[in-house]
Amino acid sequence: MDADEGDKPGYLGHLLIIGGAECRGSGLLERFVELSGGEAARIVLVTTATGAPEEVHADYERVFRKLGVGTRELRLRGRSDADGEAAAKLLDDATGVFFSGGDQSRLRALVGTRANEILRGRLRAGGAVIAGTSAGATAMGRTMILGGEGPGVSAATVRTGPGLGLLPKALIIDTHFSERARLPRLLSAMALDLEYLGVGIGENTGILVDGTRFEVLGTGVATVADGRNATVIHAAGDEDPITLSGVRLHLLPAGCVFDIATREATIGPAHDRY
Amino acid sequence: MDADEGDKPGYLGHLLIIGGAECRGSGLLERFVELSGGEAARIVLVTTATGAPEEVHADYERVFRKLGVGTRELRLRGRSDADGEAAAKLLDDATGVFFSGGDQSRLRALVGTRANEILRGRLRAGGAVIAGTSAGATAMGRTMILGGEGPGVSAATVRTGPGLGLLPKALIIDTHFSERARLPRLLSAMALDLEYLGVGIGENTGILVDGTRFEVLGTGVATVADGRNATVIHAAGDEDPITLSGVRLHLLPAGCVFDIATREATIGPAHDRY
Repeated sequence: MDADEGDKPGYLGHLLIIGGAECRGSGLLERFVELSGGEAARIVLVTTATGAPEEVHADYERVFRKLGVGTRELRLRGRSDADGEAAAKLLDDATGVFFSGGDQSRLRALVGTRANEILRGRLRAGGAVIAGTSAGATAMGRTMILGGEGPGVSAATVRTGPGLGLLPKALIIDTHFSERARLPRLLSAMALDLEYLGVGIGENTGILVDGTRFEVLGTGVATVADGRNATVIHAAGDEDPITLSGVRLHLLPAGCVFDIATREATIGPAHDRY
Repeated sequence: MDADEGDKPGYLGHLLIIGGAECRGSGLLERFVELSGGEAARIVLVTTATGAPEEVHADYERVFRKLGVGTRELRLRGRSDADGEAAAKLLDDATGVFFSGGDQSRLRALVGTRANEILRGRLRAGGAVIAGTSAGATAMGRTMILGGEGPGVSAATVRTGPGLGLLPKALIIDTHFSERARLPRLLSAMALDLEYLGVGIGENTGILVDGTRFEVLGTGVATVADGRNATVIHAAGDEDPITLSGVRLHLLPAGCVFDIATREATIGPAHDRY
C-alpha cells in the first residue's frame, strides 16, 4: 500500500466518486460525512465546476446540515485562486472535500495547482476523504472525459484531457451513466488505451475507492468495462463508429467490490443469498 | 445447414433485423429490396405493430417506390386474420416481408398462427427475405422483449414473452439501442438465461442473419452481449438491480460479421486497413 506506481497509488484516504443526482438517504453523503469524522468533520465544498456556486453551496449546506455538519465553500475561480494561500489553508484543514457537479472543463484550471497537490498529499497520508459528483467525479482521474454525447461511438465523439489524478491510474470515469446512455462514450474513451478500466456510474450511485479496490454504494449500478483482452479497430472517419470486440463487462450494484489490480468483481454480502 | 435445433436453424433465407429509424441511402432498405429480387420483388408490408397503419404503409410505399418496387399491406388485426386465407395467399406469394415498427405487444397475436408458420417455412426454404424494424425487429426472436425502460437494471424492469421464432434460438433483440440507453434492459433480458446472446441494434443500423452468422449494416453499431461465461445474481427485491459479472461485449459497426455458434466477431474488410 505504499508504492505510488501504476494501480498501486499508496493512498490511505478514501475517494468517493458519485454518478450525479445523489439523494440523502441513499447512504452516499452519509458515508462521506462518517468517513470525514462524523459531527467533527470539517467539510470543504469545491464549487468550481458549477455556474451557480451560491445555489449549489446553499443546497449542500442544507443537506449536510441535516447530517450534522457545516460546510465551507471553496470557489476557486481559476489557477491563481488554486495556487493561493486561502485555498491551501482550507484544504490543509479539511477532513472531507466535496467537488460539486457542473462542467468538468472548469476543473481543468485546478490540474497541477497547489490545491491539487495538497489534495493528493492529504489523500496519500490518509488525512482527508475526497468526494465528487457528476462533473466533480469525472475530473478525479488522471484522464478525464471532457465531452461527447450521443449514440455514435466515434473517435471524434469523446474528448478527454488531464484530470486531477486522484484516482488509480487505470480508472476512467463517466457519470449519469445509465440515464444518459453513455456506454458508447465510455467505451470510446477506454479504447484510447486498452489499459484503462472504464467505470460508468449511475445516478444516486457511487464507488468508494480504497487503495486498489472499490465498493459500490447507492441505489444503481457501476458498469465496469475492462478492455485488457479486447480488440479495437479505430474508424477511418471521425464520424464512423469504432469496432470493439471482447470487452469484459460487469454491472455491479451496492455491496459489490471490484479489485482494480486483478480486475475481478466480488459479489457483496447483500447479494450472497442466492 | 439443415438441422433445426439450437443455433442451427437450417434457414436458407435471410433475415434483416433493423434497430429503427432506417433511412434510405444507408443500404438497409436497398439490401432488403435486392435480396427480395430487386425490381421483380413482391414485397408485403406487415403493419400489425403500428397504431397508424395507413400512414406507415404510405410512408414505406413511397420509399420502396423510389427503390423501384411496390408494396402490398398486410394489416393482420388479430389472430383470425393471421390464420386466414388472404394472409396465407399474400405471404405465400411474397419474396420479401417487412414488419413495421410500433408496439411489439401487438405482434403477439401472430405468434403460432398460420401466418407465422408460413413465414418460418418460407425462410427455411430460402423462398423469402424477412425484415423487421424497431418493434418488428424485436418480435423476430423466440423470446422477445415486451417492455421495461429506464436505467434501473432489475428483474422487474424487463418483460419478455414468446416471439415469432424466426431468429436462431439464442438471439434476443433490442432496438433503438444506443439512442434509448437500453443496455440495462438487454442485459436484464439476457440474464434470464445466460445462453441468450443479447443483440442491441442502434437506429439506422441492422443485422443481416444468414444461417448462424450475421453481418452488420448501416451507420451505427450492433452491441452484442455474450453472457455464457458470466455470473448473474438476481436481486432479492423487484426494484433492486441485478449483478452481472464477466459479460463479453462487442461493438460492431457495418461490415463486421458475428458467428452466433462460436460467438466470435470478425472485423469486416472496411475496417481491415488499420
